[in-house]
Amino acid sequence: MEIYNRLLQQYGKEANAGLDRFARRIQALAEIGMTSDLGSSRIAYSQEDRQAKELLKAWMKEAGLEVREDPVGNVIGTLLGANPEIPSVMSGSHIDTVPNGGHFDGVVGVLSALEVAQRWSEQGFVPQRSLEVVAFSDEEGSRFHASLTGSHFMTGQLNLDSVKHYQDDEGRSFEQVLQEHGLDATKAEESVRKPEDIYAFIEMHIEQGQVLEKQEIPIGIVNGIAGPAWIDMKWGGRAAHAGATPMGLLRSDALVAASECVMAIEKLPSLHSRTAVATVGKLNVYPNGSNVIPSEVSMVVDVRDIHLDRRDQLLDAIIQEAESIALRRGVQFQSEVNIKVDPTSMDPALMDVVQGAIEKADLPVFNLTSGAGHDAMVIGRQIPTAMIFIRCLEGISHNPLEWASLEDLELGILVLDDTLRQLVHTKA
Amino acid sequence: MEIYNRLLQQYGKEANAGLDRFARRIQALAEIGMTSDLGSSRIAYSQEDRQAKELLKAWMKEAGLEVREDPVGNVIGTLLGANPEIPSVMSGSHIDTVPNGGHFDGVVGVLSALEVAQRWSEQGFVPQRSLEVVAFSDEEGSRFHASLTGSHFMTGQLNLDSVKHYQDDEGRSFEQVLQEHGLDATKAEESVRKPEDIYAFIEMHIEQGQVLEKQEIPIGIVNGIAGPAWIDMKWGGRAAHAGATPMGLLRSDALVAASECVMAIEKLPSLHSRTAVATVGKLNVYPNGSNVIPSEVSMVVDVRDIHLDRRDQLLDAIIQEAESIALRRGVQFQSEVNIKVDPTSMDPALMDVVQGAIEKADLPVFNLTSGAGHDAMVIGRQIPTAMIFIRCLEGISHNPLEWASLEDLELGILVLDDTLRQLVHTKA
Repeated sequence: MEIYNRLLQQYGKEANAGLDRFARRIQALAEIGMTSDLGSSRIAYSQEDRQAKELLKAWMKEAGLEVREDPVGNVIGTLLGANPEIPSVMSGSHIDTVPNGGHFDGVVGVLSALEVAQRWSEQGFVPQRSLEVVAFSDEEGSRFHASLTGSHFMTGQLNLDSVKHYQDDEGRSFEQVLQEHGLDATKAEESVRKPEDIYAFIEMHIEQGQVLEKQEIPIGIVNGIAGPAWIDMKWGGRAAHAGATPMGLLRSDALVAASECVMAIEKLPSLHSRTAVATVGKLNVYPNGSNVIPSEVSMVVDVRDIHLDRRDQLLDAIIQEAESIALRRGVQFQSEVNIKVDPTSMDPALMDVVQGAIEKADLPVFNLTSGAGHDAMVIGRQIPTAMIFIRCLEGISHNPLEWASLEDLELGILVLDDTLRQLVHTKA
Repeated sequence: MEIYNRLLQQYGKEANAGLDRFARRIQALAEIGMTSDLGSSRIAYSQEDRQAKELLKAWMKEAGLEVREDPVGNVIGTLLGANPEIPSVMSGSHIDTVPNGGHFDGVVGVLSALEVAQRWSEQGFVPQRSLEVVAFSDEEGSRFHASLTGSHFMTGQLNLDSVKHYQDDEGRSFEQVLQEHGLDATKAEESVRKPEDIYAFIEMHIEQGQVLEKQEIPIGIVNGIAGPAWIDMKWGGRAAHAGATPMGLLRSDALVAASECVMAIEKLPSLHSRTAVATVGKLNVYPNGSNVIPSEVSMVVDVRDIHLDRRDQLLDAIIQEAESIALRRGVQFQSEVNIKVDPTSMDPALMDVVQGAIEKADLPVFNLTSGAGHDAMVIGRQIPTAMIFIRCLEGISHNPLEWASLEDLELGILVLDDTLRQLVHTKA
C-alpha cells in the first residue's frame, strides 16, 4: 500500500470516503504491472492492460454505470442522464503506461471522472445529459510505436486500413494483437462516435511540467495542446587538423555553425508566439575526435505551439535562420521537416466553465499550454474539448517518481465535478 | 610505380638525376607496407618499419654517410665535416606512419636531408661541421599510443623508467617490442645526445594544413609549434519534456549553454594571440532524445598556441567564459585540463637563415605556425631548431590521399640545401 499510504500521510488529515476510495484505486492500478523500480508497466493490449481494464469495469459497475468496451479497446462507463437522447458529456483519459512509467499519468483523469460519476450516483443526482467516463486505449503508443490509438479510432482519424503497417516488437499485426486481447478489430468501425453525439469532452491530467509548481498554483486551465514538428538538420563542414588550421576563413566547422543555430533557436520562439517552444534535444558530431574540426553535425529541432500558423511561421523562421548561418559560414546545410502534428486549441466556452469552477473553489485562475500530446488533442479536433492540469512534483513524468499530492487531486476532483455538473445541465 | 609516375607526370618536365632519385625513393618507401587503399602502414618497430630502415641505411651508405641505429631505433647517417669535433648540424624527420597513412608525412624530411647530403658527396663538397641525416623512431606513436619516442629519448626527455607502462596492442612491453625489432632497449641511455654537440636541427615537413595552399606559397617558415592543451568540460542542466517546459527560466538546457561556449571559443583566440587556435571537436549530448531538454553535455576543447604564456591565458579565459555562461544560465559546470604540452618556439636566428635561402630562391617569405606536433618540437626544447613547411594538397594528411607536388618538393630541397650549407659553415 506504498502509494496509498504516502498519499494519505502527506495529506495530513482524514480523507473523506470518496477521496479515500480514489486513493485506494490509484494504489490498486499501480499494483498491476508494478516493476522492481516501483514503476508501472501496463503496455497497451498486454495482460496487465487487460487486468486493469477489467478492474476498471468492475468499479464502473459498482458506480452504477453502464459499461462497454468498444472493438479497439476503449472502455466506456455511462451514467445515464434524464435525457439520454441528447448529446452526452464525456470525461476521462487512459490507464495504459509507458514501460516503467508512473502511477498518475492518465490514471488520474479516468479515476477522477469515475469518482465524480460515482458521487453523483450515490447522491442520487441525475444529470440532464448522460455522463460517459472513458479510458482510451493505447494512449502511450508503447505497443505499436504510434500513440493515441483509441481516441483516433473513436473519431475516425484512424481505421483498419491506416494501421495495416502496425507491428508490435514481436512482429504481430494490429488485428492479431487485439484478438489476443479479446477484441475483434475487424469491427473497428463500430468504435467511431459521431461528433454531434458528444456535447463536450473534459480531460483532467497531471501537468508533466513544472509551470504550476513554480507558480504555486494547484490547478491550471489548458488553453491548447501544442502540436510537435520535428526538423532534421544536417550541417556539413570540412574535417581538418584542429592544430594545423588557423581560426578564420580556412575553417569550415560544422559544430560552430550548429551551435550558432542552437543559440538562435533559443531566441526565436518568443518573437513568434508567447506559447511556442523550440528545443534541440538530439545532436551528434562527426567524426567526434578531440583534435579534428567537426565535418558533420546532425540534429533534431522540436518545435511546438498551440497556434498552427505561428508554429509553422516559427518552423520557417528557424529553417531560414539556419540557412543564413550556413551561407554566411560557408558550411553545407540540409533540413527536412519529418513530423508535423497540428496543434489543437481548447474550446473557449468550455475553458470559461472550468474557470468558473476554479473561481468557485476559491483557487487562482491560471492558463497554460500543454506541450505533450493527449487524447484531448485528438478528440478536440472534432468535439469541443477542455483540459484541466493538476500540479505535479518537479514536472517528473514517465518515471516511477511521478507524483501529485492528494490535496491537489482533491481540488482537481472538485473542479472536475463542478465543471461536469455545469455541462450536463447546459442546453445544446 | 604509381606515386613516382604521378609525381613526374604532374611535374611536366624531365627531372634532374637527384630529383628523379628522390621521387623513386618516395615510391620505394611507399611500397613497404602499402595497403589496399594505396596508403602506407609502417607502424613503428614493425617488420615494415625495419624493412624501411634497412633500405634507408643502404641509401645513406650509397650517399657516403657513416650509418648507425641507436638503441631506441633512431637511424643516423653522418656526412663527416672537415671539423668533426665541432657541433654538427642535424636534419631529418621520420619514416614510420599511422595505419593507412600517406607517403609524404615524415618521409619528405628524411629523404630531402639525405638528398642534400648525397649531392654534397657527389659534388665533393666537404662541410665544416658534420651533417647528420636522421630518421627518428616512432614519431607517430601508433605502436604504444605515445608519440615522438625517438626524439624524446635522444634528448633525455624519456628514459627506460618513464616508458615502463608502455604496452602495444598485443600487451608487449617497450623492451620486448624493441628486442623483436633487433634493438637492445636496456642500452637506451646511449641514445642520448648532449645538446652542446648539436649546433642546429632543421626539419622539413609537409604542412598538413591548408594555409600555404590558400596563400599560393610553396614553402613556409615555421615560427613555432603549438603545444596542445585539452580541457574536458561537463555541462549539467535538467532533463525535461521539450514540449511541456516553456522557454525561459524553467529551462536548464545543457546544450544551449554548451553551444554558447562553443561560439565564445571561436572568438576568444584572436583576443589573445594571432597564432592561437581553439576547437571543440568532440561533443556528446545526454540523453540525446529529440523531445527531451538535454541534461548533460560533455565536450573537449583543444587549445594551442606557439606562445606558452598566451596559450595558458587563453586556456584560463575559455574556462572563465564557460564558468560565467554556466552561472548566468544556472547550469552546472565542471572542467579539467587533462593534457598540457608546452609549445616550442623556433630559433629566430635559424629562421633568418631559412628566410635567406627562400629569398635567394626568389620565393615569397611566409611565416606560419605548426599546429601539429613534430620531432622538431621535442628537439627544439634543447637545441636551436627550425622547420620548413612544404605546401600540400588540401591539407590532407594521415590519409592515402596525402600529396605534395614534385615542383614544391624540388623547391623545398633547394631551400633546405642552402639553409644547411649556411649552417655547416657558421662559426660556433
